[in-house]
Amino acid sequence: MSDRKAPEKKLLKALAGEKTDSPPIWLMRQAGRYLPEYRKVRAEAGSFLDLCYSPKLAEEVTLQPIRRYGFDAAILFSDILVVPDALGQKVAFKEGEGPVLDPVTDSAGIAALGSPSGVKAALAPVYETVSRLKQSLPADVTLIGFAGAPWTVATYMVGGRGSPDQAAAKLLAYREPDTFQKLIDILVEATVEHLSAQVEAGAEALQIFDTWAGSLPELSFERFALKPARAIRAKLKARFPHVPVIAFPRGAGGMAEHYFRETGVEGLSLDTGVSPLVARDRLQPIGCLQGNLDPLLLVAGGAEMRAQAAHILEALGHGPFIFNLGHGIVPQTPPEHVGELVRLVKDFGA
Amino acid sequence: MSDRKAPEKKLLKALAGEKTDSPPIWLMRQAGRYLPEYRKVRAEAGSFLDLCYSPKLAEEVTLQPIRRYGFDAAILFSDILVVPDALGQKVAFKEGEGPVLDPVTDSAGIAALGSPSGVKAALAPVYETVSRLKQSLPADVTLIGFAGAPWTVATYMVGGRGSPDQAAAKLLAYREPDTFQKLIDILVEATVEHLSAQVEAGAEALQIFDTWAGSLPELSFERFALKPARAIRAKLKARFPHVPVIAFPRGAGGMAEHYFRETGVEGLSLDTGVSPLVARDRLQPIGCLQGNLDPLLLVAGGAEMRAQAAHILEALGHGPFIFNLGHGIVPQTPPEHVGELVRLVKDFGA
Repeated sequence: MSDRKAPEKKLLKALAGEKTDSPPIWLMRQAGRYLPEYRKVRAEAGSFLDLCYSPKLAEEVTLQPIRRYGFDAAILFSDILVVPDALGQKVAFKEGEGPVLDPVTDSAGIAALGSPSGVKAALAPVYETVSRLKQSLPADVTLIGFAGAPWTVATYMVGGRGSPDQAAAKLLAYREPDTFQKLIDILVEATVEHLSAQVEAGAEALQIFDTWAGSLPELSFERFALKPARAIRAKLKARFPHVPVIAFPRGAGGMAEHYFRETGVEGLSLDTGVSPLVARDRLQPIGCLQGNLDPLLLVAGGAEMRAQAAHILEALGHGPFIFNLGHGIVPQTPPEHVGELVRLVKDFGA
Repeated sequence: MSDRKAPEKKLLKALAGEKTDSPPIWLMRQAGRYLPEYRKVRAEAGSFLDLCYSPKLAEEVTLQPIRRYGFDAAILFSDILVVPDALGQKVAFKEGEGPVLDPVTDSAGIAALGSPSGVKAALAPVYETVSRLKQSLPADVTLIGFAGAPWTVATYMVGGRGSPDQAAAKLLAYREPDTFQKLIDILVEATVEHLSAQVEAGAEALQIFDTWAGSLPELSFERFALKPARAIRAKLKARFPHVPVIAFPRGAGGMAEHYFRETGVEGLSLDTGVSPLVARDRLQPIGCLQGNLDPLLLVAGGAEMRAQAAHILEALGHGPFIFNLGHGIVPQTPPEHVGELVRLVKDFGA
C-alpha cells in the first residue's frame, strides 16, 4: 500500500478510513422507479433485463440521480440475477411478480450450469455500460460496481423466485450441504469474475449485497455467508489491491462484527435495524460504515426523517462513514424528499 | 422476593436464573398444522377465531403436543389478534391469506376503538381455556400465556394485514408520531389487561411476541418496542411479582442487549439469526435465554439439525436457558423430527 496515492474522491476517502468534511452520500437503488425520468426510459426499454443489457440506456438511468441530486457515487444500473443468467439459468422479470427462474434444485442442475469463466463474455454489455460511465461521470463521483453475494443469489437460483423465508435454498443447504456448497463455490468464482470485469472496465469500488444473510443460523452464516465473502474479498485483493469492497450482510445483527473483521472488507453497509450507537462502538473501529436510514422515513419526509437522519449523522458522522439507506429506495418516495436529505447530509459538520 | 418459594417446574427454574439438569424445551406454535390431530380438530372448528374462542377445543389442541412429546411448557392456543378483536376492530382469518382487518389509519379510527378495560369481558372464553388447562395439564408442565407486543399488533391494525415491510404502520408512526403513540398506549393497557386475566386464570409465565421489532430504526425501536415492553413488564410486576415474562423482539440484533436490560423481562427469546456464541457472552449474563433453532432445520432433520441443535446447546445450555425455535414451527415439519429434537435436548448434559 506504500505506493498508493491518497484517494481524492470523497467516497474513496471514507473507504480508506479517512474522515471527510461531511459524509459522502448515495442511496441503494438510487436509479429507480421513484424518478419520472427513470420510468420514461424503463417504459421504452422492453424487459427489465433488456434495460440491464442496453449499455446506452443503463448508462442513462445510472446518470439520472447524479444529475438530479449530485450524489457522491453512482452505482451501475444492473441486477444481482445477471450472474445466474450468465451461467445459463433462465431468468425472467415478470411485471408485479419479480424475478422468476427455472429452479436449480439438485446436483444435476448445478452440474448443468455454465462455467464461471464464461461470465465475462456473457455479460459484455454490462461492462460496456461501466466503460461508458467511466467516461461520462463527473470527476468527483465514484463509480461503484456490484454483485449479489453467493447465498442471496443461491436463494433465487434454488427457489426460482423471491421468498420470505428462503425455504428452498435452506432445505437444500440443510439436507445436502455438500451439494449446496458446490453451488456456492461456483457463485464465488462467478462473482469474482463479474466484479473483476467491472473493475477492469472502470469501477472504482465494489458492493456485495447479501440481502438474506440475516436469516441464516450461525453455523450456516459462517459457511455460506462469511466464508464466501472472505474468499471473494481475498481473490479481488490479489488482483486489484486498491479497490475497496463494501459488504451488505443484511440482518446479520450480532454476527456483523465477526463478519466485518473476518472478511476484511473495507466497508460495512448497515440495515435499518442496526443501532447507530452500537455500530459506532463496535463496528466503526473496524472500518468504514454505510447506512442506514429507513427507506420509509424517506417516503414520510418531514420532522421525523430529519430527526432520524440527524441521529445517524451524530452517531456515525465523526468517523469514516458513507450516508445511505438501510435498504433500497422504494418507488413511492417523493423525489423532493431525496433532495432535502442530500442537503441535510452535505450540511452536516458545516 | 424473600418470601418466594423456589420454583419446582423446570421452565420456571430457568426463568428464575437457575441452572437445570437439561434445558427445558417447548416450541413456538407447537400446537399447529404439522400435527394430524390438530388438523382434525381445526377442520371441525369452523373459523380459526372460532377455534381460539372455543375453550374445549382450544384446550384440546394446547394439550396435543404435550401428550405427544412431553414438552416442559404448554402455550395457550390463541392468537395475537384477539386483542384488536376485543377492542372492536373487525378481524377475520381468510384461508391461505392470513388475517384481514378493517384498517385503523387515523385519529378517528383510534378514538373509535373500545376501552382496554373491556378486554377482560370480551375475551372471557380465552381465560376459560386457561382455567381448563390449569386443571388438565400434567403437574410438571408450565402454562404460558401470551400476547403480541403493541408495535407488532399495531402493524396489523394499521395495515389491515401482514406485510413484508410494515409500511402502513411505519408511515403513520413517522408522519403522525403522536397519533400513533395513542394507539400504542391503548395497546399497552389492553395487553396488560389481557395478560393479567391470563395470570388470574392460571398462566404461570408470559411471553410477549414482537415479531416485527427488528424492522424499526433505533429511535423508533426505543419508542415503540422497548418502552411499551418496559411499561407492560412494570405494570405486570406490580400486580404479579412472581410471574416471569419472556420477550421476543425478533430481529432486534445489536439492540437486544439494551432491550433486555431496560425492559427488565426475565427471559429473552432469540430469533434464528442470533449467534448463540454472541448471545452467551452478551445476553445470558443479563437473564434467561430462549431459542433459537431454525424451524427449517426441524423440517430438514438429520445430521444438520443435530449439529446445529448441539451448537446451540453447547453455547447456551450451561446457563439459564430454554430450548426453542428461532420462529414458529412450520406446517411441513415431520412430527418425528420434533420427537428426535426433544430427546436430543433432554439427553443434553446426561
